[in-house]
Amino acid sequence: MAEPAFQSLPGFRDFIPRECAIRNYLFETWRAVARRCGYSEYETPILEDTALYLKKSGGELSAQLFCFEDQGGRDVALRPEVTASLARLVAQHQRDFPKPIKWFEIGQCFRYEKPQKGRGREFYQFNVDILGEAGPAADAELIALAIETMLAFGFVAGDFVIRVSDRKAWLDFAARHGLAEESIPDFLNIIDKLERTPPELLKTRLAAYGLSPEAVRDFIANPNHASTAYQAIRADLTARGLADCVQLDLSIVRGLAYYTGVVFEVFDAKKSMRAVAGGGRYDTLVATLSDGATELPATGFAMGDHVIRNLIEETTHAAMQMEVWLQRNAAACDVFVVVADESQRPVALRLVTELRRAGIAADLPLTPAKVARQFQSAARSRARFALLVGTEYPALKLKILASRAEEAGHAATLIPWLTERLQQPDGPLLA
Amino acid sequence: MAEPAFQSLPGFRDFIPRECAIRNYLFETWRAVARRCGYSEYETPILEDTALYLKKSGGELSAQLFCFEDQGGRDVALRPEVTASLARLVAQHQRDFPKPIKWFEIGQCFRYEKPQKGRGREFYQFNVDILGEAGPAADAELIALAIETMLAFGFVAGDFVIRVSDRKAWLDFAARHGLAEESIPDFLNIIDKLERTPPELLKTRLAAYGLSPEAVRDFIANPNHASTAYQAIRADLTARGLADCVQLDLSIVRGLAYYTGVVFEVFDAKKSMRAVAGGGRYDTLVATLSDGATELPATGFAMGDHVIRNLIEETTHAAMQMEVWLQRNAAACDVFVVVADESQRPVALRLVTELRRAGIAADLPLTPAKVARQFQSAARSRARFALLVGTEYPALKLKILASRAEEAGHAATLIPWLTERLQQPDGPLLA
Repeated sequence: MAEPAFQSLPGFRDFIPRECAIRNYLFETWRAVARRCGYSEYETPILEDTALYLKKSGGELSAQLFCFEDQGGRDVALRPEVTASLARLVAQHQRDFPKPIKWFEIGQCFRYEKPQKGRGREFYQFNVDILGEAGPAADAELIALAIETMLAFGFVAGDFVIRVSDRKAWLDFAARHGLAEESIPDFLNIIDKLERTPPELLKTRLAAYGLSPEAVRDFIANPNHASTAYQAIRADLTARGLADCVQLDLSIVRGLAYYTGVVFEVFDAKKSMRAVAGGGRYDTLVATLSDGATELPATGFAMGDHVIRNLIEETTHAAMQMEVWLQRNAAACDVFVVVADESQRPVALRLVTELRRAGIAADLPLTPAKVARQFQSAARSRARFALLVGTEYPALKLKILASRAEEAGHAATLIPWLTERLQQPDGPLLA
Repeated sequence: MAEPAFQSLPGFRDFIPRECAIRNYLFETWRAVARRCGYSEYETPILEDTALYLKKSGGELSAQLFCFEDQGGRDVALRPEVTASLARLVAQHQRDFPKPIKWFEIGQCFRYEKPQKGRGREFYQFNVDILGEAGPAADAELIALAIETMLAFGFVAGDFVIRVSDRKAWLDFAARHGLAEESIPDFLNIIDKLERTPPELLKTRLAAYGLSPEAVRDFIANPNHASTAYQAIRADLTARGLADCVQLDLSIVRGLAYYTGVVFEVFDAKKSMRAVAGGGRYDTLVATLSDGATELPATGFAMGDHVIRNLIEETTHAAMQMEVWLQRNAAACDVFVVVADESQRPVALRLVTELRRAGIAADLPLTPAKVARQFQSAARSRARFALLVGTEYPALKLKILASRAEEAGHAATLIPWLTERLQQPDGPLLA
């Protein structure tokens, strides 16, 4: 086959309807969980001043930025993440909102990386943040949201675990071992890569701070090293009945420089190294990005669409839940009107209009076709019902496409009849 | 006040929660109408090969493109519209889908223009297309969707009108008057700008083709010049009961070069020159963008978010409908749990978790606060109910925040109690 004239860019996805429905399943689940946990939705621009990202991350992300000069000579970038925009927005508007500010966002981000399985150059991200509350109750509330999100996708305790850590525990550790403050970022970076660093190299790196791998591993293994914030979070989640999903794991520090306290990651329990989502405290970012004009403690969490989708598809009960949703939501219509006699087309057009107006997804063939062909179209649309409009109108026939069963009805009672029928299961399909 | 350190780019919007809720009202209405009319949702990338847009529009849009060279040396552009991506996608995948393909998309587009009221550098667009059906039934089906969209926003016949035209009528006119084929684009451009061109200039321009403004205006004014496609569309929409919303208006040709047949615009009836949405047939675009590999007749429609939002806000009945939706959907939560005695916090945490799990949006104060202060937080969250958890637990008290009425309840029946309460109106707020 010849190469098509135009293709999508490498790492960018086309969402044909089934893919788009799966994306919408993620979006609707994210949105429903966030809303019932009391978060309000916001959105920021896809394009921002490049300096916003450079200042936030200290340059870490700059190699992956889609950035360019716009027609007005501004250095602009496609957003690689949303927290910088949120901090900018909140610094500007925080006086208008009571604290804590509990906000969420669902949107696309862009990073110029080598495309590979589970990673493209664009991804959707679910961002949830609590701003204006410095205490561990906010961290617990956010971790509860992360757990509720996993449960809403049909995962059960045991499928996943939330590993919680606290950078403050490491700052105490560093202070006790006499590390200078300016070496902390490098030290945290060593901890972040602990299990991925060859033993000899790890030994050398830690030796530079007068430390050994054993001392570090002993510190991580000792549950008494949990911070007081962690203890409070654990008590809070225990009251909520969620403590089973949470583990202390001091080996987690998270890569980015701006985290300041409690950090956590959601892990797939089967592939124990795969992080599904993560977050933590960033108490100084709003001040940094507002040149000190606004100080606002904050904690946030993000989940991308690639990894969670893979995990759902690999987990039977979560995959089945999604499939049931798709059966209900990815059909082109619920009722396909079959024009059994072409002279009745005006009547069929009127019926379709009435059904749609009543909120019932309905369609009909746009051009004359044999009845058998129309039934094929009905099946391909994944409609539940075919409604036959023929010369016996206003008498109507309803065919249940999954079971092939037939019912008789009348145009005068069309809407209540179909509304009731749509609320019932329809045989083999859902048996 | 000092200038904030970072601001959003000119022409780009931050959506704080109320703005985001209004955006979501548009999205949910668009999505609901499209789905009940039998369209399936798709999405294409925000970033595409720049050549895709240049080839489609013949360069018309190039001055407004946000385009740049990516790190791999590709010329890429933020999409100024979605139809080019749709044509690319459909050319590649059309064998996988039965015809007609009825698809819709809701997404953001970008144009580098001077920001002004009702126009930014980004906007959301609702795109609806029917591909693979050349007959007027597809145009009628699409126009019906445009009408249903306006009705779904609460507009009534008389608030808006769909003006329908057919470029074929003008091609016939041009042929009868001996215009050469290569002059057709320029001629259609003159018609497009008819009412905005100074009389003398118009006269000169038309004279070049041996025509007069009078001849052109007479042609437009004569309803007998409607094409056969228009007659069929009108009969179809009459059967649907929608003919009142439609007018023939041959002065409409739509600016873009790629339209090939029936074109239409949705107009605000009060400000008769304001177009809310528009679309038409583009039977050759898929072939053009696939170098002739795929031929697929098509008709499509797009509505942007700026103008429709302004029109809703200016139209009392549509604005009221949106406000009712916002009251129901833009609250931070439905039930705010007041911790009347701090010793009961663990119980309150458990109750909030149960409510959320049952799908009820619930929140609580994260830190201890006086009861009066907590009631303020409840009111600010726009919750309907405050649920008091105190030392008399498992007895609970529910305060209806709009009416200040109080009810007594019990933890054992919490979920059915609140579920039922949430389904009832709550007094003054909705009276």
